Amino acid sequence: MDQNICKIAILGMGTVGGGVYKILEKQKDNLIYKIGGGLEIAKVLVRNKAKYMDTVAPEMLTDQWSDIINDDDIKIIVEVMGGLEPAGKYIKEALQKGKHVVTANKDLIAIHGHQLLELAKSNNCDLLFEAAVAGGIPIIRPLKQCLAGNEITEVMGIINGTTNFILTKMSEEGMDFADALRLATDLGYAEADPTADIEGYDAGRKLAILASIAFHTPVTFHDVYTEGISKITAKDIRYAHELGCEIKLLGIAKNKEDGIEVKVHPTMISAKHPLASVKDSFNAVFVHGDAVDDAMFYGRGAGEFPTGSAVVGDIIDVARNMQFCCSGRIGCSCYKTIPIKNVRETISSYYVRMKLEDRAGTLAALAGVFGSNNVSISKLLQKTKQGNTADIVIVTYDVLEKQFMDSIAEISNMSMVKEISSIIRVYY
Amino acid sequence: MDQNICKIAILGMGTVGGGVYKILEKQKDNLIYKIGGGLEIAKVLVRNKAKYMDTVAPEMLTDQWSDIINDDDIKIIVEVMGGLEPAGKYIKEALQKGKHVVTANKDLIAIHGHQLLELAKSNNCDLLFEAAVAGGIPIIRPLKQCLAGNEITEVMGIINGTTNFILTKMSEEGMDFADALRLATDLGYAEADPTADIEGYDAGRKLAILASIAFHTPVTFHDVYTEGISKITAKDIRYAHELGCEIKLLGIAKNKEDGIEVKVHPTMISAKHPLASVKDSFNAVFVHGDAVDDAMFYGRGAGEFPTGSAVVGDIIDVARNMQFCCSGRIGCSCYKTIPIKNVRETISSYYVRMKLEDRAGTLAALAGVFGSNNVSISKLLQKTKQGNTADIVIVTYDVLEKQFMDSIAEISNMSMVKEISSIIRVYY
Repeated sequence: MDQNICKIAILGMGTVGGGVYKILEKQKDNLIYKIGGGLEIAKVLVRNKAKYMDTVAPEMLTDQWSDIINDDDIKIIVEVMGGLEPAGKYIKEALQKGKHVVTANKDLIAIHGHQLLELAKSNNCDLLFEAAVAGGIPIIRPLKQCLAGNEITEVMGIINGTTNFILTKMSEEGMDFADALRLATDLGYAEADPTADIEGYDAGRKLAILASIAFHTPVTFHDVYTEGISKITAKDIRYAHELGCEIKLLGIAKNKEDGIEVKVHPTMISAKHPLASVKDSFNAVFVHGDAVDDAMFYGRGAGEFPTGSAVVGDIIDVARNMQFCCSGRIGCSCYKTIPIKNVRETISSYYVRMKLEDRAGTLAALAGVFGSNNVSISKLLQKTKQGNTADIVIVTYDVLEKQFMDSIAEISNMSMVKEISSIIRVYY
Repeated sequence: MDQNICKIAILGMGTVGGGVYKILEKQKDNLIYKIGGGLEIAKVLVRNKAKYMDTVAPEMLTDQWSDIINDDDIKIIVEVMGGLEPAGKYIKEALQKGKHVVTANKDLIAIHGHQLLELAKSNNCDLLFEAAVAGGIPIIRPLKQCLAGNEITEVMGIINGTTNFILTKMSEEGMDFADALRLATDLGYAEADPTADIEGYDAGRKLAILASIAFHTPVTFHDVYTEGISKITAKDIRYAHELGCEIKLLGIAKNKEDGIEVKVHPTMISAKHPLASVKDSFNAVFVHGDAVDDAMFYGRGAGEFPTGSAVVGDIIDVARNMQFCCSGRIGCSCYKTIPIKNVRETISSYYVRMKLEDRAGTLAALAGVFGSNNVSISKLLQKTKQGNTADIVIVTYDVLEKQFMDSIAEISNMSMVKEISSIIRVYY
């Protein structure tokens, strides 16, 4: 009987760890049917045991990693402590000892995922991380299995709930960035130091993981171009609406003939695109494959229970693999090494807002600079005038980023140009 | 070498079969990496071999089932012929012979799925059917695996593309039903006999499959209440817009304390709900679980390549299971037998449009009948008047269907009621 009970250890009892613990308790009686065998939490690793005496059975609590790594009965390590270290060391040691690992750690997977998956493979272990991307939304398993018949050419998404909440408030209530950020902080959507969210680093990590899986090529966080939302103004959002668009922080990964593009940046996207109606703290991942065409996966990208849901789904899968003696059945899916492009070599269209001196010949001079850099103008809107200064909005056609940025450098040196107020990429 | 090549047979070369064949040809060089072994189409079963001489390698073609069932080298049967028979007989025989089965056959799975899964289990075989629900959209694997830590309480969706196309045209272009159906037929979205789509039978089959998996209880098509869209008028859609709603043909499955509800019917749903913005022939499945909260899966619910994508994903999974000697790893997930409620025992709110004689006391009499049946009125709109007849729209609060229908029976017998023009359920 005991043989058929799989023992697990949970590392960390923060938001996600608490969710995992509660879900497993609640599902206790169902697990036997879902796995084909029992599952038992044997140990919970925390820094301060006293803090959890009321919520976790005291005999499970330990503050010593050695209690877990040296316990041969513990077969699955659930790493939900986050951060690069000591999580990385623990996962490595666990895999080396033949223990399976489930983790929600996007920081770690986005940088060391490939090596860890290799290590898992050489030890016949499972290493699953559905929770590392878009919280509760099933996306890794669909990409690796359901869509395995596809050549995926694009994965793009709203994969940071904090910034999506802020942009939703700016779009729907006309708030400016600072007020929306304050509200997000007050409501607990933004952390005390919101840098990783606001600057797109968090989204960049998730995008690296998605791109690796979708394109079968190792992509790390260092490969991802990131640009945050702190410069987005209420004015830009108003103009976006006039252009039939919403502004979203998108992670966009494309597999093109000349290489992979991986970028996180604020993006104007048609209000009719399914991603445009993803609001508040919801996440969504949009996938384009040659067979499936467009597909989208939508849900809660963070939180105790949604993220816990993804972790528990992985735990059940690992335990089922143990029952069927097929651990490592789905491992690393990277069998290509497609080159990754520098952002300057990627193509996009651009929205640019600037302040110009309002006199004859200004627009002609501007058009001349754009033209000499191969930048074609799709739309030009003359907005407000103040004294002899005019607010101008230009939307370009698709152009090589390098050429667009060269033209902007030239333009910003022109005496009639008072300010390049904002530059936002446009997605068609 | 040959040992490591898995041979498959495709039954049927219609739209889906053609898609599967082309995708497998295109993915040929990648399959070894995705499976860990080779995959080869050995036989293709068709009725008329001559018809496919140009598209399928002639040596693969056969019109004899015995060529396939008696070939012990063929390990996987891909059934994409559709219909109850002979597909059912072929699948049964294949499983009895220890061959794995991948099918896109919703008709069959919605009625005999449970028995076939039992048969697969007793022969240690895989029986996968991701393509049977919502075409290319990954939904079965996410429900069975990614969301396995959840108590799913609701699965609901737009799971018929034809009717969604028609309702989109009615909503966006003010078409009436007959014109929109004609357009759908002209564009190839509707079949020559559109009954199964229009009357909700197709959606009902998919809903039965979804409910079985979500609630771990066998639910068949016969358990599903179905009501089609042929009575929806342009006028109802206009009134729906006035009420802030869209009308969609939804399959709604709920797991409630007193049993399972499974219903397909036209539904007024808030324009802000994610399902309301699913347009044209796109499908989407909305899931609510106690841990994941709300999640949605969106994409193409039909077509050669989207449905082929789902079939090929299953084929790859079955072949991988063979490599890892873990066939049958994910089988039937029904371990409960929750009772299924009659539609009259379910609760909903209702939109009802009727023509009344325009004289004093009419509304009071109406309100009296509703009141005596425990039907509370949430909204009452007096619309157009013609002579001494008035068009009235009433929206109720949540009420037991039995009580609502009893009140409608009583009302339709009242002399001042000229017509009950339409009744549409409202989803909040």
